[in-house]
Amino acid sequence: MKKIILASGSPRRKELLEQIGVKFEIQKAEGEERITSVVPEEVVKELSMQKAEEVAWRCDGDLIIGADTVVAVKGQILGKPKDKEDALRMLRLLQGTEHQVITGVTVLLKETGKMVSFAEVTKVHVYPMTEEQMERYIDTGEPMDKAGAYGIQGKFAAYVSGIEGDYNNVVGLPVGRLYQEVLNAGIDLRNYT
Amino acid sequence: MKKIILASGSPRRKELLEQIGVKFEIQKAEGEERITSVVPEEVVKELSMQKAEEVAWRCDGDLIIGADTVVAVKGQILGKPKDKEDALRMLRLLQGTEHQVITGVTVLLKETGKMVSFAEVTKVHVYPMTEEQMERYIDTGEPMDKAGAYGIQGKFAAYVSGIEGDYNNVVGLPVGRLYQEVLNAGIDLRNYT
Repeated sequence: MKKIILASGSPRRKELLEQIGVKFEIQKAEGEERITSVVPEEVVKELSMQKAEEVAWRCDGDLIIGADTVVAVKGQILGKPKDKEDALRMLRLLQGTEHQVITGVTVLLKETGKMVSFAEVTKVHVYPMTEEQMERYIDTGEPMDKAGAYGIQGKFAAYVSGIEGDYNNVVGLPVGRLYQEVLNAGIDLRNYT
Repeated sequence: MKKIILASGSPRRKELLEQIGVKFEIQKAEGEERITSVVPEEVVKELSMQKAEEVAWRCDGDLIIGADTVVAVKGQILGKPKDKEDALRMLRLLQGTEHQVITGVTVLLKETGKMVSFAEVTKVHVYPMTEEQMERYIDTGEPMDKAGAYGIQGKFAAYVSGIEGDYNNVVGLPVGRLYQEVLNAGIDLRNYT
């Protein structure tokens, strides 16, 4: 019996993987993040690989999935906000313009030593927001555990005019590409037992 | 006390409107659909208006929202599939290529007699699918109550590489544009009580 491990504590990633019908267990990666690049695509691939590797050696899974998401806007990389003020700083950067959400995904196959790793980029267009709208949104509590200080799958939907790319990538896991890339490597994630 | 009515029985539209924090009641439109145009944008605007109007005169709501969604691909307009065979026909048209999802929305304001009506278009890119994948997908039961025979928010996410436009429009209600258009008409849907 083969076992899939998701190396992430994010409830949104869990939901997305369940949504496409994959059976898996969760082992949250705890380690410190070591970033050696400033290119968002490279940063998230590195971090997703670190998460997968940290969990891989200490768990009994056969296939380990790591993921990391950042927001890139005006030459800055945004992770999760530190506090309400930081969230407001981020929303001011995002409102009335477009930004990129980048998720890195690494899949480790213990049996063969193979690895699948990629970064998926989605462009998001945000309507102009007033200071009051941003403050009201922060008061909902939604921004605090999310890269870029917003959840597209939550109340922030009222301020998104459109995207270019994969929506689930913005939520935190590009399950379409993940499923297809692993399928190309010879494994159907939905039958991997 | 003002009352918002959603003139749709779709559980997905209900969820989306709740997601952005709007309080409303549901009154499903029952009437026959009368289509007088072959342009998808016009068709969905007409149908959304018919739904809103049908409900408007017989309910005690102050603001009534109607919506209708279709899929357009290769010169054809796809509604909900009639049966499994029809769903397979639709998925064959959609796999390996791109199509458009068009949702028409009409908002009626009883007090002022004003109306907001628009059609939102989103392009969806679908990965190539084998006959077996399409049949397996139909067997999940997901396609049967959905325009174009798929649910992007369900297992079909494994077959979507990306979109251009509003994701929620594909699910059935472009809540971002709906919220903003009504806001431009002077009403904040989240404070409309």
